[in-house]
Amino acid sequence: MHTNTLDRGIVEKIVREVVLKRIGARPPNAAFTLAVHASARHMHVSREHLDILYGPGHELTPDRPLYQEGNYAAKETVTLIGPRSRVISNLRILGPMRKESQIELAFTDAIGLGFDNIPIRLSGNIEGTPGAHVMGPNGMVELQRGLIRAAIHVHMNPTEAAFYGVKQADLMKLRIGGDAEVIFQRVHVRIDPNSRLNVHMDTDEANACGLHLAREIELLK
Amino acid sequence: MHTNTLDRGIVEKIVREVVLKRIGARPPNAAFTLAVHASARHMHVSREHLDILYGPGHELTPDRPLYQEGNYAAKETVTLIGPRSRVISNLRILGPMRKESQIELAFTDAIGLGFDNIPIRLSGNIEGTPGAHVMGPNGMVELQRGLIRAAIHVHMNPTEAAFYGVKQADLMKLRIGGDAEVIFQRVHVRIDPNSRLNVHMDTDEANACGLHLAREIELLK
Repeated sequence: MHTNTLDRGIVEKIVREVVLKRIGARPPNAAFTLAVHASARHMHVSREHLDILYGPGHELTPDRPLYQEGNYAAKETVTLIGPRSRVISNLRILGPMRKESQIELAFTDAIGLGFDNIPIRLSGNIEGTPGAHVMGPNGMVELQRGLIRAAIHVHMNPTEAAFYGVKQADLMKLRIGGDAEVIFQRVHVRIDPNSRLNVHMDTDEANACGLHLAREIELLK
Repeated sequence: MHTNTLDRGIVEKIVREVVLKRIGARPPNAAFTLAVHASARHMHVSREHLDILYGPGHELTPDRPLYQEGNYAAKETVTLIGPRSRVISNLRILGPMRKESQIELAFTDAIGLGFDNIPIRLSGNIEGTPGAHVMGPNGMVELQRGLIRAAIHVHMNPTEAAFYGVKQADLMKLRIGGDAEVIFQRVHVRIDPNSRLNVHMDTDEANACGLHLAREIELLK
């Protein structure tokens, strides 16, 4: 039996975020910086599930802050168990806790884990999505639902939304220029007063367009 | 030490090709069918290297034919060893043999293996690319070069090229419509009298655009 063993360093490598200054189409007096980040696979966890996974009353330990204020990668990780007993170890939990647990995977992760068809959803919209088993040092949770591939989206505040002329739930286009130039045609707009202008794509998207090699980035209505 | 173990089934899963009929913009009397395939990571092997990996005079055993006439996935696989002793097992060899060995990885594979920066190249253009160690049942080869991420490209014959109005080495655009709609902006044109109209993308690209969910496919000049 041959196996393909990936160690923990890989996960952290993939987790590494690529931040790029926005270049291009907008007038130079625009005060906005557009950060484009690759989100590696991760879990959001509910109070109830963290109690089971890490023990009653356990609190998440921030490891490093994320770009959106108040969000962080936690030190805590879990093991995700797929339908054919394949696992993803060291699946990072992102804080803070949420009302409902959710796991975001790239299609490459999901196929590797044995899921043929996880749905593309905006975070939080998990009605009718598949579940999975999740293991922590204190116990196992059977998620009834919550496995998604997160749709590419852009966070912005109302001022930035006005600048781009877009409203909540609109779709924008994102062009990543370079040797593997790609235009993402369905970038969902999420507006919140506390947000910073920031596109989130998954690792498949970041690797498809060669985000780490990008020479130009344009967000277009 | 936590490990993330992926078995052989995964590789085969990823290898699975998605063939989609072309829908859309072209007139219905166009006689062409555009197949879009996801190429999983693989190796092309030289006579000299196959002698070392599988033994002197060993011939590749076709496992299944590929879409381009005369090409096939071989039964033979190798183990690819990355710079930090991480490995990819069951790396499929594609036949027939070539003048020079070459390994095509998606960026997700390359990053997982510990390569920070493999170049994006057209197949065969491997001057100055990184090497790696490759292990077969009969021995180990140290490739001096040949590791690439294959640039997305379209094979076509001269009649199809005339239909699209493109010439050798032109760039075209490929729109994959669906919930994760993407336009690939730099699809390299490769014309050969023996080719069938066929886009090759890697697994990152196929997973980014959700090729298995695609509702429309358009190849545009």
